[in-house]
Amino acid sequence: MQQIHLALPEKSYDIHIGMDLLPLVPPLLREAGAPLFLIVISSPAILKLHGSALLKPLEEEGFQVETLTIPEGEPHKNLRTVENILTSLVKFKANRKSWLLALGGGVIGDITGFAAAVFLRGIEYVQVPTTFLAQIDSSIGGKTGVNLPSGKNLVGAFHQPQSVFIDPSLLSTLPSREFHSGLFEAIKYGILQNAELFALLENHHADLPGKNPQLLEKIIHDCAAIKAEIVSRDEKEGRLRMILNLGHTLGHALEAATQYSYLTLGEAVGHGMILAADLACRLKMLKEIDSQRIEKTIRSLAPLPSVHFLSQEAILQPMQADKKFSALHLRMVLPTKIGKVEILDDTPREMVEATVLEYLEQERQRNKKAD
Amino acid sequence: MQQIHLALPEKSYDIHIGMDLLPLVPPLLREAGAPLFLIVISSPAILKLHGSALLKPLEEEGFQVETLTIPEGEPHKNLRTVENILTSLVKFKANRKSWLLALGGGVIGDITGFAAAVFLRGIEYVQVPTTFLAQIDSSIGGKTGVNLPSGKNLVGAFHQPQSVFIDPSLLSTLPSREFHSGLFEAIKYGILQNAELFALLENHHADLPGKNPQLLEKIIHDCAAIKAEIVSRDEKEGRLRMILNLGHTLGHALEAATQYSYLTLGEAVGHGMILAADLACRLKMLKEIDSQRIEKTIRSLAPLPSVHFLSQEAILQPMQADKKFSALHLRMVLPTKIGKVEILDDTPREMVEATVLEYLEQERQRNKKAD
Repeated sequence: MQQIHLALPEKSYDIHIGMDLLPLVPPLLREAGAPLFLIVISSPAILKLHGSALLKPLEEEGFQVETLTIPEGEPHKNLRTVENILTSLVKFKANRKSWLLALGGGVIGDITGFAAAVFLRGIEYVQVPTTFLAQIDSSIGGKTGVNLPSGKNLVGAFHQPQSVFIDPSLLSTLPSREFHSGLFEAIKYGILQNAELFALLENHHADLPGKNPQLLEKIIHDCAAIKAEIVSRDEKEGRLRMILNLGHTLGHALEAATQYSYLTLGEAVGHGMILAADLACRLKMLKEIDSQRIEKTIRSLAPLPSVHFLSQEAILQPMQADKKFSALHLRMVLPTKIGKVEILDDTPREMVEATVLEYLEQERQRNKKAD
Repeated sequence: MQQIHLALPEKSYDIHIGMDLLPLVPPLLREAGAPLFLIVISSPAILKLHGSALLKPLEEEGFQVETLTIPEGEPHKNLRTVENILTSLVKFKANRKSWLLALGGGVIGDITGFAAAVFLRGIEYVQVPTTFLAQIDSSIGGKTGVNLPSGKNLVGAFHQPQSVFIDPSLLSTLPSREFHSGLFEAIKYGILQNAELFALLENHHADLPGKNPQLLEKIIHDCAAIKAEIVSRDEKEGRLRMILNLGHTLGHALEAATQYSYLTLGEAVGHGMILAADLACRLKMLKEIDSQRIEKTIRSLAPLPSVHFLSQEAILQPMQADKKFSALHLRMVLPTKIGKVEILDDTPREMVEATVLEYLEQERQRNKKAD
């Protein structure tokens, strides 16, 4: 088992990473000061897969556990679900000293964290992420929240967990498309900050998830360490933390343009990173050879569903509503080499448009060939 | 105009107090760094009374203002109303740099503050309280939140405003029962921490609100200063801030026992403070003469609707669910003399029960006499 310490001025916590970690969670929770009454929030499917591996050791350690399930998926990530959770917490007689435990993917982690942030003006919670994406991204750093009918993650709070427990062995049950979604997010960390991690994924991704557990653990550790380090230097997204949005601006636009039902988050970010590299190249911030290597590696990780059928307008229009933009600026995170990015505050809008237009043309070409 | 500076480690702000302050709000907002686009949240009735006095000067100062009204009253203080506000903010294209302005009483202030706390994980807001209670209590200190169907203020966040603007002249339009509600809360500060303020209210409350504007401003200033000082020493209710709950524990129980429709908050706290003084006396923490002076003064401020028809159980049962209690302890704030209180962590439950029982008997006697 490895630990990453995330140090913040107001609250510091440990991220524990290890294969078959679940049985060790209960003693680690006691060490972290958890009360013996715990409310586990999960989904029916995840509880079926991993519930007993966590709940049995918890009970053996003397924890009294209430379990609360919420429906899977982004459409339920809303204030209604939060209200249902809060109402259950009252029924369970939870108080200011109670802790929540999120067992699940990003949606469950985000909702649980937000419920913890607002119940009685803030109680503690811990994260036990069960998806690749949640293990390397959303479970770390305290961004919590839900969607509004008018947009994703528009409601939320910064509320750091009390501990994070990452067990890569849980990923063996993950559907392959969800696993791939995590791979795209993992390569993001390589492009951002770690050329070695990029090369590792470039050359060995085929050994994942099952064939090389040590490699999987190392990759998750390295991604989590980058995330933790960035969050520790900029908890509330003053500026530095924005670099984690590499590929997300155009990625979210693609998700919105396809009604959040066609691409996984990772796939959207995969497209978004290729577009960001194209754009950086066009702006002479990135060498063409690096841009090509980025695109080639991303496409080699897993299939990227084609977006050839989208219009340029369908992609660019949702970007106007993106909360990362102020009214007048197009702020983009762009790679300058493999392992380094820059935040460009005034990206010329016409350059973004030209990049998207050309990418759509290429997508149409690729799609024709595939036919 | 007077200022109170509320200094906190993460965010400090000014509380401006003065008769006819509204026209000065716009330049003070610009000084405080407000953006020129502002969203005012209020109720139809309050907008009718005070809207133009604020909105006209805002527009003259160059602010572009969107106005959002929410229905009055506690039943609308819920997550549904918050979601409606957030959805409107998206429609108004509010972003992370937008500010909200709450123009209204405690409900509007609490909801607006909570909406600001969770929109895009936190934006700025300012408070322009229009009720006595809001001017001396809820607008200061950053406690924001809404109710759940299962209980009051169970959802919320600590989120400090960027400025507070208190104009006592607004209270001249307040219905007298609402004004009295504020008087009960004002005397609380006297009992808590300021014997002089207590004596001032004891002897001169009849001159308020209209006859002596200077006195009203002084009382509001002194109350706000006590609140600000306590909050600055204990922002998140570690312990000290709990003393502000004097009279609230039993007060909330009375409110709950009467379905939140019979007593104003101030009246409930009025009863609660008399009960707390009785209890303190019974526990030999407070002299009988002080307890009698507290009761006499509270009853002289304004009529306290009788609670003679309640049973002891109806009052004590909701207290079990109060978020201020952990499972085993009855924590009470009790006066030890006029101007000083103590927090008792293990108040003997039977003493509380005996105090309530005797008080109900007295209420029945008083009620018979009144008939």
